[in-house]
Parts: sequence; C-alpha cells; structure tokens
Amino acid sequence: MKLGCCYYPEHWPEAIWAEDARRMAAMGLRLVRIGEFAWSRIEPEGGARYEWGWLDRAIETLHAAGLQVILGTPTATPPKWLVDHMPDMVAIDEQGRPRGFGSRRHYCFSHEGYRAECRRIVTALAERYGAHPAVVMWQTDNEYGCHDTVLSFSDAAAASFRGWLAARYGTVDALNAAWGNIFWSMEYRSFAEVDPPHLTVTEANPAHWLDYRRFASDQVASFNREQVDILRRLSPGVDITHNFMGFFTEFDHHDVGRDIDVATWDSYPLGFLEQFWFSREEKAAYLRQGHPDIAAFHHDLYRGCSNGRWGVMEQQPGPVNWARYNPAPLPGMVMLWTLEAAAHGAELTSYFRWRQAPFAQEQMHAGLLRPDSTEAEAAPEVRKAAEVLAAIGPQQTAQAPVALVFSYAPAWVIGIQPQGQSFRYLELVFTWYSALRARGLDVDIVSPEADLSGYRMVVVPSLPILPEGFADKLGALTCPVLVGPRSGSKTDSFCMPEGLAPGSLRDVIPLTVTRVESLRDGISEPAEGFAVTRWREDVASDLAPEWADAEGRGVVYAHANIRYCAVWPDAKLLGLLVERMAAEADVPLTHLPEGIRIRRTRTHVFTFNYSAAPVFVPHLGLTLGPASWHLDPL
Amino acid sequence: MKLGCCYYPEHWPEAIWAEDARRMAAMGLRLVRIGEFAWSRIEPEGGARYEWGWLDRAIETLHAAGLQVILGTPTATPPKWLVDHMPDMVAIDEQGRPRGFGSRRHYCFSHEGYRAECRRIVTALAERYGAHPAVVMWQTDNEYGCHDTVLSFSDAAAASFRGWLAARYGTVDALNAAWGNIFWSMEYRSFAEVDPPHLTVTEANPAHWLDYRRFASDQVASFNREQVDILRRLSPGVDITHNFMGFFTEFDHHDVGRDIDVATWDSYPLGFLEQFWFSREEKAAYLRQGHPDIAAFHHDLYRGCSNGRWGVMEQQPGPVNWARYNPAPLPGMVMLWTLEAAAHGAELTSYFRWRQAPFAQEQMHAGLLRPDSTEAEAAPEVRKAAEVLAAIGPQQTAQAPVALVFSYAPAWVIGIQPQGQSFRYLELVFTWYSALRARGLDVDIVSPEADLSGYRMVVVPSLPILPEGFADKLGALTCPVLVGPRSGSKTDSFCMPEGLAPGSLRDVIPLTVTRVESLRDGISEPAEGFAVTRWREDVASDLAPEWADAEGRGVVYAHANIRYCAVWPDAKLLGLLVERMAAEADVPLTHLPEGIRIRRTRTHVFTFNYSAAPVFVPHLGLTLGPASWHLDPL
Amino acid sequence: MKLGCCYYPEHWPEAIWAEDARRMAAMGLRLVRIGEFAWSRIEPEGGARYEWGWLDRAIETLHAAGLQVILGTPTATPPKWLVDHMPDMVAIDEQGRPRGFGSRRHYCFSHEGYRAECRRIVTALAERYGAHPAVVMWQTDNEYGCHDTVLSFSDAAAASFRGWLAARYGTVDALNAAWGNIFWSMEYRSFAEVDPPHLTVTEANPAHWLDYRRFASDQVASFNREQVDILRRLSPGVDITHNFMGFFTEFDHHDVGRDIDVATWDSYPLGFLEQFWFSREEKAAYLRQGHPDIAAFHHDLYRGCSNGRWGVMEQQPGPVNWARYNPAPLPGMVMLWTLEAAAHGAELTSYFRWRQAPFAQEQMHAGLLRPDSTEAEAAPEVRKAAEVLAAIGPQQTAQAPVALVFSYAPAWVIGIQPQGQSFRYLELVFTWYSALRARGLDVDIVSPEADLSGYRMVVVPSLPILPEGFADKLGALTCPVLVGPRSGSKTDSFCMPEGLAPGSLRDVIPLTVTRVESLRDGISEPAEGFAVTRWREDVASDLAPEWADAEGRGVVYAHANIRYCAVWPDAKLLGLLVERMAAEADVPLTHLPEGIRIRRTRTHVFTFNYSAAPVFVPHLGLTLGPASWHLDPL
Repeated sequence: MKLGCCYYPEHWPEAIWAEDARRMAAMGLRLVRIGEFAWSRIEPEGGARYEWGWLDRAIETLHAAGLQVILGTPTATPPKWLVDHMPDMVAIDEQGRPRGFGSRRHYCFSHEGYRAECRRIVTALAERYGAHPAVVMWQTDNEYGCHDTVLSFSDAAAASFRGWLAARYGTVDALNAAWGNIFWSMEYRSFAEVDPPHLTVTEANPAHWLDYRRFASDQVASFNREQVDILRRLSPGVDITHNFMGFFTEFDHHDVGRDIDVATWDSYPLGFLEQFWFSREEKAAYLRQGHPDIAAFHHDLYRGCSNGRWGVMEQQPGPVNWARYNPAPLPGMVMLWTLEAAAHGAELTSYFRWRQAPFAQEQMHAGLLRPDSTEAEAAPEVRKAAEVLAAIGPQQTAQAPVALVFSYAPAWVIGIQPQGQSFRYLELVFTWYSALRARGLDVDIVSPEADLSGYRMVVVPSLPILPEGFADKLGALTCPVLVGPRSGSKTDSFCMPEGLAPGSLRDVIPLTVTRVESLRDGISEPAEGFAVTRWREDVASDLAPEWADAEGRGVVYAHANIRYCAVWPDAKLLGLLVERMAAEADVPLTHLPEGIRIRRTRTHVFTFNYSAAPVFVPHLGLTLGPASWHLDPL
Repeated sequence: MKLGCCYYPEHWPEAIWAEDARRMAAMGLRLVRIGEFAWSRIEPEGGARYEWGWLDRAIETLHAAGLQVILGTPTATPPKWLVDHMPDMVAIDEQGRPRGFGSRRHYCFSHEGYRAECRRIVTALAERYGAHPAVVMWQTDNEYGCHDTVLSFSDAAAASFRGWLAARYGTVDALNAAWGNIFWSMEYRSFAEVDPPHLTVTEANPAHWLDYRRFASDQVASFNREQVDILRRLSPGVDITHNFMGFFTEFDHHDVGRDIDVATWDSYPLGFLEQFWFSREEKAAYLRQGHPDIAAFHHDLYRGCSNGRWGVMEQQPGPVNWARYNPAPLPGMVMLWTLEAAAHGAELTSYFRWRQAPFAQEQMHAGLLRPDSTEAEAAPEVRKAAEVLAAIGPQQTAQAPVALVFSYAPAWVIGIQPQGQSFRYLELVFTWYSALRARGLDVDIVSPEADLSGYRMVVVPSLPILPEGFADKLGALTCPVLVGPRSGSKTDSFCMPEGLAPGSLRDVIPLTVTRVESLRDGISEPAEGFAVTRWREDVASDLAPEWADAEGRGVVYAHANIRYCAVWPDAKLLGLLVERMAAEADVPLTHLPEGIRIRRTRTHVFTFNYSAAPVFVPHLGLTLGPASWHLDPL
Repeated sequence: MKLGCCYYPEHWPEAIWAEDARRMAAMGLRLVRIGEFAWSRIEPEGGARYEWGWLDRAIETLHAAGLQVILGTPTATPPKWLVDHMPDMVAIDEQGRPRGFGSRRHYCFSHEGYRAECRRIVTALAERYGAHPAVVMWQTDNEYGCHDTVLSFSDAAAASFRGWLAARYGTVDALNAAWGNIFWSMEYRSFAEVDPPHLTVTEANPAHWLDYRRFASDQVASFNREQVDILRRLSPGVDITHNFMGFFTEFDHHDVGRDIDVATWDSYPLGFLEQFWFSREEKAAYLRQGHPDIAAFHHDLYRGCSNGRWGVMEQQPGPVNWARYNPAPLPGMVMLWTLEAAAHGAELTSYFRWRQAPFAQEQMHAGLLRPDSTEAEAAPEVRKAAEVLAAIGPQQTAQAPVALVFSYAPAWVIGIQPQGQSFRYLELVFTWYSALRARGLDVDIVSPEADLSGYRMVVVPSLPILPEGFADKLGALTCPVLVGPRSGSKTDSFCMPEGLAPGSLRDVIPLTVTRVESLRDGISEPAEGFAVTRWREDVASDLAPEWADAEGRGVVYAHANIRYCAVWPDAKLLGLLVERMAAEADVPLTHLPEGIRIRRTRTHVFTFNYSAAPVFVPHLGLTLGPASWHLDPL
C-alpha cells in the first residue's frame, strides 16, 4: 500500500513547494493528490484562457521529488464567473431555493450547460497532463453528493427527469399504472405534467420519490461517466478514481464504481462516530478512536465497489472541523487506521491534508503539518507506518468467509417509507457487520449482483426490492444464508408484491409476511436470550419458528440452509445468529474482548485494539496497549 | 349501528368487484363509502367530459349485493389538468411556498375558480346519482384540514380575508380600534392594506391571527356549504356527512356540523396515541390499544357536533402508515373499538379500508383484507361484531349526567397566545374527560351554545372568549358547575376584558384574576393532595378559597353552585373536583381499575378493558381479558 | 438614581393622561419614556403631514405633573403607508424571505430610502421638541436587533456590503487574499461579484461571514449615528440614549455606545433565565428571581459601554409575555432589582410599562398598573424603592478591583466557527463574571480598548482576534492577568496567525497552542480538584503547567503575572483561579452562600438574597429573607 497526501500548491507560496515535496518523500509518502478545487486558478476568467504555468511547475516539482500525482478534475468548485454566466446551473434545494455561490458543490448534475463546461475543462486538463509521467491517477470531481447535493429540484432536473421517465416507461399510462397514480387522482396525461416530488402537501407517492432518487443517482453516474470517457481517451492506461464518503447512500456507488478503476473513500472515523447513530456510551468509549468497525466497514464496502481495487483518498490525521464536537485521535490511532486499511487490501492511503490551511472553511482541520509547517502529531505515526508497510510488503486479500449483501436502493426505499422511524437500513447493515467482525470474521460487503458462490456464510440484512434472479441465486447456495426483515417486500415499482412479502423469496423459504409492526424506542419485547425492538413481522408459515418470542410469535424461520429473520435483530440475537450460522458452516469464530478486532490478508493476521485502555487478548495471550496493534504471519 | 367499509373500485380490476361486494355482505357490512378520491377517473381530461360508466357499474355491483353506498365528492384531489389550468388555485403555505401537486388537498379554500370547478363536479355527480336507490349518504370532500390545509396564504385568501374583515368591521378605523393596531404603529388606512399575518418579524397582533383563523374556518364552512346546497337540491332526503379527524381543531366543526346531517370521524387510536401529548408511560401501556379515552372522547365530541347523529367513517383495522411508529392492535381491539362506537350511539362504523392497497402512499395501511385478498386479522373481529350488534339491536343514547363544554375558538386563542408553552387547550379538555370517565361517568361534549339544562354537572375546562349570554346561562343552572383557568380572559377582539378576567363570569362568581403565571415543565408546587403545575392565576376575591396551595394561595373558589379553578389541574386535583361535584350532584361514581371504562346506552352497560393484561373489575365481580368487553342490560 | 416608566399616551384616552401623570409622580417616578412606537399617530398618512397636537398635549400633561420626558424616535415601527411606498425597504431574512409588515423592526438598516425617511421624522421631532423643557433625554429607535434584525440579506444590504468591502480592502485581490478565497475557487474578479454569505451549499468562508457581521454591525452604528447627529444639532445639551437588550451580541454595542451619552438596557431577568443556557436546576432554583448575576452582569457591561453613564430603560415589573414560560417575580424582587441597579451606579431605572396594555402583542406583559388601572404587585415595591433611594442619596461607583474584558467580535468569531458546539462565548464570560461575583468581588466589564491600569486583577475569558497592541497592554500590567482559551487564535481576517495561537500573546507568555479539541456533552476528564469539559488545547511550552489534568496534560500556564487557561474552565477551576489570583493581588474575597451577592458603591455595601428561601449570611451575621436585601455604609 502506498501512502500519500492531499496537497494544494495553489494555497502556498511557490517558494516552499520543493521543500514540501522533499519532506513528503522523506516521510515515506509516494502519492500526492492535487488540483481538485483549483478551477479559478486554472481558468481565472473564463473563455478558455488557461493558466497552466503554476500547475505545470507544481507537478514538475512533485515529480522531481519522486512523487506521483493524483490529479483531480476541478468540477466540484465552478468559479463565480461561470455561475454568473449561467445562473441557472445552480442546484435548487428541496425547499425551492437556489443554492448560493460561496462554498462548493453548488452545481446541478442535470444542467447541460454546466456539463459542457465540465467536459471542456476536463478535456483541457487531460490534453495537457494525460501523458505526463508523474500523473498516475485521475480523480473525478470530489465527493459527489457531499452537503446533500445529489438531489436538485431545478428546472433542468425536472426536464431531465421527464426524459428519464419517458425512457423508463415508454407511455405515461405505464407510469400511472406502475406508480398507482389512481390512488389520489394523481394520474398524468403526459410526461410533461410530472414534476419533482418535493413540496407536496403530504408525502408524495413513494414510487415517485424512488424514481426521482434513481434518476438523481443516474445523473451522478452519467456526470461522472462523461469525465471518465474523456480521461480514458486522452490519458489511456492511467487509473481513474473518485473519492466516495462515509455512511453515505444518496447515489448508487456500485454504478459509479463500475466506471472507474479504483474506488477510494474519505475516512474520518471520529467525525463519523459523532455524527451518526452511535449510542451515547459508544460515543464516550470510542471518543478518540472511532467505533472499531467504522473504517473497516467502509474498507470492505468500497473494496466490493470497484472490482476489488480501492484505497483511502483522505485519511483523518487529527481533529476535523465539521462534526458537532471534534476531539483529537489518541496517540497511535493514525498509524492504526493506516494499518487497518492495509489489512483490508487498500492500494493507497492518502492523508488529508499535507499542511493545515490557516484560512477559509477548513482552517480547523488538522494536517500532517501544522499551518506553521511544523510536524503535527500524526507525522511521526505516518513515518512509522511507512516503515512497517515496507517491512511487511504488499498485502493481498482473499475472499472472506462471509458475504454481507449491501445495496443502495434499500436505503432509498426505507428512507422514503420508514414505517417505523428507528428502522435505518445503513445502521442495520452496520450492526450485522459489527456482529460478524466482533467474532473474528472477515467480511466482504458485496452488491446483490455479486457472485455469492464460494462464500461460507451469506447475510442479506434487508433487501426490499429483490433484483431479478436474486432469490434463485440464494436458492442455489448451499452455505447458511440469512435474509432479514422487509426483504422482498416491494416490487421494482415500489408496490407490495403479489402474494405479499417476501415476494420471490417464498420460492426458497416457504413463509409469508402478513403484517408488520414498528415499535417505539423503549419498547422491548422479551424473547429467549434477546429482545424484539423497533420492528417485527407477523409470519404465516408451516415452518415452526427457529426462534420465537416469549409469547410464541415466530422471530426466525429456517428452511434448509435459508433463514428469514422477521425482526430488527438486537445485538444478542445477532450474536445467536452469527454463532449458529458459523457452527453450521464450520467457520471458526474468535471471541474478542470489547474493542479488539482482527483482520487477515493472504499473508498476515492483524490485531487492533480500538479501546482507550490496555486489553488482554486471549487468542494472542498478550496485552495490547490503547490504540495499538499486533501483527502475525497468517 | 351499521357496519361498513371504505372501498376504491377504481383501484381494482372490475372483474373482482362482484366478489368483493359479496364478501363484504357476508362479513356483515351494509355500507360502502366510495368515490372521494376518484376525480381523475370521473373526469380524466377536463372539459366536463365525464366517464360515468365505471362508477355506474361499481354502484350497481354494490347495490346488487345488497350494499348501500356513501358517495364522496372528489374535491380533495383535484387532478393535474385542473391545477395546470389554474395554477393559482393551490394553497400557499405559511412560509410562502405554493403547495405542490402530487399528493392531495393542494387547493386553497378561497380560490373562486376552484370553487366553481367543485360546484360543477358536485352538480354533475348529484345529477347522476342523487336519486340512485343505492346512494344513502353523501360525503363532502374528505377530512377538511388534513395535512395542515385549513390555512392558506395565497393572494386569493388575502383578497377574501379583506372582504371578510370589511364585512365584520365596516370601517378600517373600527378594525384598528378592535385589534389595538396603534400598539406598534400597525394602523391601516384601508382594508386593502391588510395582509395575512404570516412572515412578520415577530408575532403578529393576536387579534390579527384570531381573525385570520376565524376567516379560514369560515372558508371551510362556506366551501362545504356550497356542496351541501347542491346535494340538498339534487339529492333531496339523502343524508350528508363529512368525515372529521381526531384531535383536530383548525376549523370550527360545530359550524360545519350544523350544515350536515351526520357528523362522522376517522378513528385511528394507535396513531393518535403515538402522535399526541401522551406520556412515555401511557404510550407504552396502551401501545396496541390506544389510550382508553381517545375513541370515546371523539365519539362524544362528534355526537354533540351535528344534532346527535354521528358515526365512524374510518375505523383503524390494523397498523396505520402515518405515525412515527405503527404497531398492530391487540387481538380483540377492532371489535372493542366497534362496540365502543355503538355504546356512544354511532349510526355507523366503517372500516378503512376494505382491502389494503399495494401501491402509492398508503400501502402500509392495513385493511380488512390483505393486498392478496386474504382476510387480515380484523376480518373475523368484524364478523363477530356484526353478530353481537345484531343481537343487541340498535343502541340509543340518553343525555349524559355531565356536560363538558368544548369549543374551537379556545384552541385558536390559546394556540396564538400560549403564554406558557405547556398550556394545551385540547389536552386540558381531554384530561377533564378522562378524569370523568375514569370514574364511570358518561359525558356529553357540547358547544357553549348548547342547552345545558338537564345536566347534573357542567364542566367548562377553559373558555377564554365567553359567548354572548354564556355567563347568564351558567348562572341560571342549579347543578354544580366548574369553570377553568383563562375563562373570560379575552374579549371577542382578543383583548383583555374591562375589569379583567374572568370578564362577565364575575357576575356569577365574585372574583378577579389579577395576574397569571406559567410554570416550566418539572416545576410542581405542592398543595394538599395535589400539586400545581403549568399554570396558576392570582385571584382577588372576598371568597375564601375552597382549595389552596401549601402557601395559602387560592386554587379553587366556589360560590353557590359555581366553581372557578385557577390552575392547570393535575390528575389528583381533577379527581378531587370530580368527586366533590359528583357528591354535590348526587351522581354515583364507579371506581374503575386502570384501563377499564364503562359506557351506558338507554338499554345496556358496556364495560371495556383497554389494558394489555387481564383486569379484575370489582363492579362486575369478574376478570376481563386484555382488549375485551362485557355487556349487561342497564 | 431616578425612577421612571414607559408610557404610551396614544394607547389611552386623553381624559386619563393627567391622572396617570399624577399617580406616576405620587409613586415616586420622575421620568417617563414615550413616543418610540407612535409613528402612525405622528404621521398617519405620509407626506410630512404631522399630527403634533396629541403629542404636544401628552408632553405638557407629563410636564405639568413634574415629570421629565425621554422621547423616543419612532423608527422601529415604520407604518404601512411607508412600507407600501417603498416595499424594498423591508429586511430579507437568511432564508431569502421578505420580513412582513404586522409587528415591528421590519426595516433593513441598509436601505437609503428608509434612512432618508428616518432622518426626516427625527428632524421633525427634534425641531418640535428639541428645546422643550420637559424633554431631558432622547432615545433613538428601540432595541436595535430585537427579533433577529441586525442581519438583512436584501439587495440594499448586498450593495452596501460591496461598498463596505471596497472601502476596507481597496482591491478585490486584497479581499481574495485576506479571505483565502483560493480555498475552493471562491475568488472574485470584482467587488460586484460578492454576495451576502447566506444560502451557500455548506458553510461560507468564515472570513466572509465575519465581514458580513462587521458590516451589519457598522450599519446599525451608522443608522444610529444619523439620528444622533440630527438630535445633537437640534436639541443641543439633551442626553441621548438607546435601550440595548440582554444577552445580545449581534452588533458592537461599544461602537453605538460611543455615539450616545447614556447606555440603557432592558432588564427582564425571569425571561432571560428561561430563554438562555442556564441549567434545569438553576431555572428551578431561580424561577421567580432570575439567576443572581443576570441583572448585575448587564449593569456592569453597559456601564462600560458609554463612558460610565448608564441606566435601565425597561425593568420587568411582573410576568412577561415572551418567554416559553412566564412566572411572576417573588414579592420583593422588583425592589431588589431596582436597588441592584442603584448599587451598580445606574442613573435611572424605568419600569416597563406604566399600565399593562389590554390589547395587541404584549397584553400579557405586566405593568405597574393592571389594565383596569388598579395597582399591580410591583407598584408598592416601586414606591418603597423610591423612598429608600431618596434616603440613601445618589450612589457613585468606584473602579472595581477586577476588569473582565468583553468584546462583541469574539461572539461572532466563535458563533461562525464554534468547532465545538458547546463553546458559547457569552456563557464563558458570564460564568467568569459569576465566579468572581460569587466570591464578593465587584467587577468592571470593559472592552479590550479600555484602560486596564488601576485594576488589581484582569480576566480575558477569550479574545480570538487580538486588537492591535493588546498583548503589549497586558504585558505592561503588573497585576494578575488571566487569558482564556482561543485567545489570539485568529487574525483580523479570520485566519490562523503565523506561529499559531495565541498569536502576539506569545510575547507575554511563551507558549504555543498546537492543537485544539472539543468534547461532547457528558465527557468530563478528571484533574485535581476540577474536570476538563467542552474544550481543551494542546500547549507546547517550556513552562511547566501550573495546573494539569490527571494524565499530566497542561491546563493552566503561568509566566510572571500572566496566566493562560487552555481549557473551558468548569466552576471548580474558575474557583481555583479566582482564589489564587485574588491571593496574589491581595484582594480580599467574601465567601457568600448560594444566592447571596454583594455590591459596593463609594458609600454603601448592598447585600442581596436571590434565593427563594431565607439565608444566613455569615459576613453580616444575620439571616436575609427570600428576595430581600440589606444595606450598610461602606
């Protein structure tokens, strides 16, 4: 795994570039990402009058120091002159307000004029640097969707949506039928009558929302593809990446992942711990380390996103600036996070950023250097990590024993129609992941389209809309398979399937979900060894339940190697299920103390202590200090 | 009491209509409500080209099965073609945004063009079906005000408001004087200068808001009246209803109730429990039953709304889709709710809906049938309820011993000027109702205009604006009367009365409220046997207080048969007051265990167990199972 | 100290004015503020057709009763005719919506047309009454900024902002450099391209926001200055005031304070207790008294705002109408508040309002009289206060032993970039104030520009942007000085300083803040005798820490007489710091029981009991009843 950093030569005096490059190399870095926000310096005035000089010199300077460049296209930050030239290029938010200039990502993915400008600037960049020996990777744009920017409700978006619908449905009658628009006299006479689904009096038709989300996701993918196509043509053989985000499901990353070579993501474990659903206790226990599965979850997710090639484009090196509270990592955590990435097979880990900027929006975001160019706390950890990585050599991943099936559409479906407000799809997948990993299992997070053969356990936490053939694919497996609540509960048009949920899964496990309940926070219905919370389904089946609650209502059903879990599984039920499936699959588990995780490559076993205290690790027979790690040959 | 269901033939293949009708009849249903959202099928294109065929056949099919039809006017769901024809017909929300097409109720009550379209479609419907032998009732529109739709801030509304003000005040000087517009130089020189009271820098004049709420309520009533007038003319002798909602006070239902024949309401006890002010403990204890007074409260409220004729148009038969959490009713609850309605004298209970729709917004809302046409959990309970109802025969209500005086304007007055944010008028009335009913009392909820003679106890929880003659009416009573805080505290123009609160009530109880306090949540000031929370008034009077707090501040004052309660009464003070008044009135109380309620008709006593556990009921000498009932002759 | 009241003759029949005036005088009042909302009566139609008659008579009536008049300019309430004449004069809120007519303060400070109207009406008022013997003081406008009205995002504001920027930066390149606009390609090519910083996709550049806040603050000051200039010219020798608010930092009050003669403020301790950051326990303990430091804090703040001349223009006399909950003051509190003002050197205390209005927005706001003209609870306390004040004579303040350095810009800087959401600048200053005062210290709250010599202790709770020369000023002091976290952490352009925080303070204490952390609520890291919460900084220094946490991380550093506190100080650390500094300064402390406060003038020591219970006061050797006071000669 190569190490790198994110660098903004345009932020600093040219006089210090060479020294920066020298220090980067000396620290063990090999990659430098640049350029992704620099449009106003590349083209200060519009009119295709480019200022290449500074960028030429920046790349040369890095190259001269033996560094390789990841060059970003600057399309996340259209300059003011461009916005003023086509004011309707800005996105419109769900409240109907234009999103103003003055930060970033103010563009609408559907605006053809802006797309043309993007093609132009990407073409110009690729023509100039596509064959430059320093440029080893392109990054398209930056963090698609950041700051809630996937959805736009502009006229451009509405017009594109109508075209998208026409292509999908052919006739408006087909659309009306698919969505069930008769329901409240919502029938359209032409595609031209269809608007985006926002600002309706009460919820819009969920099918309307789902198609709007699909359309918006497709717009992201096609926006990206336009850049990829140009880069492929003008910079053949150079890898293309995009830097995805954490806990983010607003567009289908599998779609974008298919078009690029390397899926990268931006890893900020402390900010994510603070901003997401973790309990007060978890937020306290892992304050300066992040929950032990946050980074690993995304590593395994993005490895499954782009044909196995992946990396970390932005790695938190200290406090960030954007969470409600921003603590500093414990000493050792930056190195630990780096090794965790290697343990999951990353090609690169790039720290964000080389030097903390003393100005503008992210001035409180730490870097490897402080604004005064002294080394920040992470720098020696990076230097040490580079040494360790060099010592152990490249790490290759094997297929994991467990496949965890994850998809983006379920997040949209359940977000559009939660039915119980505590049913959060991403949390459900994450808690499954955490239950598996806490028992020492390596996990591949894969899309429903993935080849599932070769796995020894398969978990589908929830999959409301079953892709064509998915039930058959599960049926063909011989390993233990678990399918969770709401699976098969919707058709492709956001309707309930004929014969009810779980739809075509009934072909592989004979049961019907006759009714669902959601339970408010604090309601906990006892069962043997666990409790039912948040969600439960009534199941009609000739099968006797494998687990039931205290009143005998079925909770888990099994049929041959297929299980159906009819509730939101609490941590205890997750444990029971993982243990039984592992026993059936003859997959050994490792009982790990709280905060300890392990991960295997083809050659090594990594053990990590995410606790803030020393922990005795039975399988190692030794005690690991806080935020520390241990490495064994496999 | 007839049973019925809500049915949408336009949602289903015509081929299954006859079988549906047969099954409805076999289940014991006699009434079927149809048509209220079907405008786009009745008139798919505009231009008064009506498609009557399907509706003719649907009505004939139901009729042929022996079912009677309640036919809804479709004005809650104007189709897209109509909105596009007059885009300014949509309501404008309080933030100034047009309310978009794509769900329902997007119209502004004040738009004359839309009103003309409504008159046209209602006329066409009434001309076609006004004399049809199957049609036994009309329903106007659907749930006026649902989704916060009473208030609109459109140009049409503003113009109508100006006319309304001119009619009310005659001159703008009279308006300025009535509202006290001198206060912040808010004086107008003409009615044309007056805007709706939204988006002001800080709160607008409360008199401005009160008149806007009165105006908006009047617009609902006149909108309804236009339909009633047409239906009376074209369908003489056929009852007219409107289906009101629960815990909803945005317009004056007494006004609308006067114009129709039968007040119906839509009863969703589990959703209401979740969405309203009930405590965490109540929400847990009554999770799958609803608080024991939710349905009864509305039954008694709507019975008083339309000359005693009332019913349930939509009865929850399973989980709903619109609350934050949506549990399923306990087995037995659907039957229990049905009998509770009968016990309060309902003419009809109609379940919403016959078959769960597998598409669009309400696909997670249970029906009597599942989407696959199998019977849902409620179906056998309905069948049983039909048998029981047949066995006991029609139930007539007698005047209850207690009148609870309720009105809509207090909800507006207190909502506009809460003064303490925990003073919720509807909750105050409900807690009074619950205190009475928990002691075995039957209650009539009546408007201040009602004849109060004949009652043995009268409770007025709060009545800030006293209708003309109301104090005299109370003064003429000889039974125990209790008047609660804030009564008589405002004039008709939202000013403080001369001589201070309680205004003209001082004629019947000699005291003056000199000052009011509101107390934050958690503040509880002890008194003998109860505590003062939320609200307390300083009272100047020669009367010695009947109850005082630990420091001797008066809490309740009595003068002859009239009492004034100067605080928000907690549950214990409510109990003390009910018990003393009942003793004075010689009205016997029944001490009921928690969760048990009774209700008498002219012929029967119904006992209901709303608990989730079996409860021994002393006055019956037997134990009732969870969600079960017991019936005795009176 | 003179007593007074706020009076609105235009609200009442002229027939009662004389009796009102007589009763005011008899109650011991000498000052009457009038006129500040009366534009629509002074000029009912526009066109400079003034109606002076009623105001002439009102002033004469008060004068005849021996009362002095504070005359307000009516510019906070432009009438409807004026708004309709220039609709773009209204402010635009941060969401982009025009702020509607119907309450007050709907104007934009930047609208030149409205400013001209204000100059016209102020000129007319000053020409008529500038030399009137009754008029002893002018009040400009009313509560600048109330209801979130400092910021406006109108076209007028945007245009003025551009001019302000051009004046500040000279060239747009200088602006781009100062703000660091290269960061996300936010560079401008001309000032004309710069918009207000609202509605951006994510946070705008903090430098952009800071300049917008500075600009907006300057607009308030220049708006005020226009009125002051007219009044100085046409009413020479008559004092000018403006009534500021409590816990309000949206504009720089020191700037406005420099232009007026007497800083007054509006004191509503019970409302402020409810609405601000006080804990649940404090809100319960001080429910009807207000936290013991609320009034005193503002007295000391505003005394420092306008050259030592200050007063209370609106004193709460009973329940207010605008907090979530509105309790009544304990008996005695109105008198106690009055004496607290005297103890801090107020020139006047004016009660808001003479008579409670029975109409419009503030009808639930108590007065000295009830709406029926009977005396409210406060009246006898006012009468008594007048007697006591007459008995003790004028109270002069001496320089306090402690200077607490407070400024407005830190509230903007930290509000724009909190980094940890619990770091609230005003709360930090208040808790310092409270820690000092709870130990019996008198405090001067002064601006960073103040002369600090002569103080025996100086506390700078936080000062992110150090004014030119401030570090040198501190360095020149010989008394104990404490500087708190974040001080010196920003340049004037909202960047991090070269050499890092604390910037130029490193000249007086040799340390560098290398990193900062914010800690979520509930995180409490132990140290000896206190705990670290909310915020902590990593400090690099050759100094050994004076206090450290349990792990040895430095918390407080001292160098000669200068201390740096690197954390958010909890109450215990505040106590340790105050006690050590006082010992060093040889300033005696008085250990006061909870709820007891003292304050010295040149001649007297006032002791106040803010508790709701009697408290034994050791230094007095006696027990003070609840809400009571004690007075000794110094």
